[in-house]
Amino acid sequence: MPTLYHHPMSPASRFVRLILSEYGYQTELSEEQPWENRRDFLTLNPAGTLPVYVDDSMRALCGATIISEYLDETSGIMKRDRRLLAEDPFQRAEIRRLTEWFLQKMEADVTRPLVRERIFKLQMTPDQGGGAPDSKILRTSRSNIRQHMKYLSWLAGSRPWLAGDRISYGDLAAAAAISVLDYLGEIDWSDAPTAKEWYQRLKSRPSFRPLLAERVRGVTPVSHYADLDF
Amino acid sequence: MPTLYHHPMSPASRFVRLILSEYGYQTELSEEQPWENRRDFLTLNPAGTLPVYVDDSMRALCGATIISEYLDETSGIMKRDRRLLAEDPFQRAEIRRLTEWFLQKMEADVTRPLVRERIFKLQMTPDQGGGAPDSKILRTSRSNIRQHMKYLSWLAGSRPWLAGDRISYGDLAAAAAISVLDYLGEIDWSDAPTAKEWYQRLKSRPSFRPLLAERVRGVTPVSHYADLDF
Repeated sequence: MPTLYHHPMSPASRFVRLILSEYGYQTELSEEQPWENRRDFLTLNPAGTLPVYVDDSMRALCGATIISEYLDETSGIMKRDRRLLAEDPFQRAEIRRLTEWFLQKMEADVTRPLVRERIFKLQMTPDQGGGAPDSKILRTSRSNIRQHMKYLSWLAGSRPWLAGDRISYGDLAAAAAISVLDYLGEIDWSDAPTAKEWYQRLKSRPSFRPLLAERVRGVTPVSHYADLDF
Repeated sequence: MPTLYHHPMSPASRFVRLILSEYGYQTELSEEQPWENRRDFLTLNPAGTLPVYVDDSMRALCGATIISEYLDETSGIMKRDRRLLAEDPFQRAEIRRLTEWFLQKMEADVTRPLVRERIFKLQMTPDQGGGAPDSKILRTSRSNIRQHMKYLSWLAGSRPWLAGDRISYGDLAAAAAISVLDYLGEIDWSDAPTAKEWYQRLKSRPSFRPLLAERVRGVTPVSHYADLDF
């Protein structure tokens, strides 16, 4: 069985788990603490980033973009109306733009710093940079959430799904990032009814269930985290 | 004619210019100063990143990954042995991994901070963050170059081209980043003969000529910058 090296609080890992589950693939999960720079893991992926997908022939695919493109080329293409990346090149470009938005831009502005300060630093040794969260970083990242939620609400309000008429990688990428922030209680849903309705639809999909059941050591999720009707 | 919004010292912009030229496409170039956050530019690409490709129907494609995938789907696929992204999904994954390495990892570790400190800050107003380069950032970025040059040398020494037997997006991405650093005199070639031999091959291609003729205000390139035999 293929193995996915992941971390439960990594949006890029969650994104790939959602794709695999939507396409009905079984994968063994292996949790990796990315700050440890484990030698065997760096042999698989010299860039040290998550997720990494190792197939049955022990070939490694590194990073969410590369894994998702590979899955589209080898599986998605056979899925007809369940394909998560469109056929039309311009539609594909729009789906990729939104995937990048949530897994790279929002990741840099909001998710990576918040996850690092609030979760990873609890488990890191002082040598690795562990310790108390930096309140300035928390403040900046939190003030960036507002802009991203406005953009998400606008997208959710203008199209049936974020990138168009059908669910796509764009929705899975956004929901992966949002689910991590929601676990941490960082999303103010009262302010974003359109985004909330969209997220409820995502959360109700069977592919989302394992993510909602997941817990990380030392940080309890917000009470509505696993509620489908929050 | 399509327009490419770019900056001469942006590796991602240079990468797309190389692809367009290798495939024989004419594009109008429009220089953008990314730190200005120009309103019309943000309408094209809300993420504010370069490059942006606007086709004849005024549809915008944002960012190097998205543009390069689009060009592969609409043009590369017809190029047979001149295609810059392989046919085989695993080969494609390896090409994408190297493209990401040089346009994202090396960009974050080395190129973006060096270009910002040494070029952009000369042209930015104090309000925009302009001023003298930060010597600590220069030092850290420069010490990161060594690791990346070692990896480039290893790749160039183990395969005819970086990702395999044929020239690919991986070579163009690496050469785009290296050419910017070489302009700034940041590469010590005496230490990297294998990488140098590879870069000479890239530099000699007609697609490279416009990049070697380019100059930015206030910063003269190192004397060997445009020499094919340096």
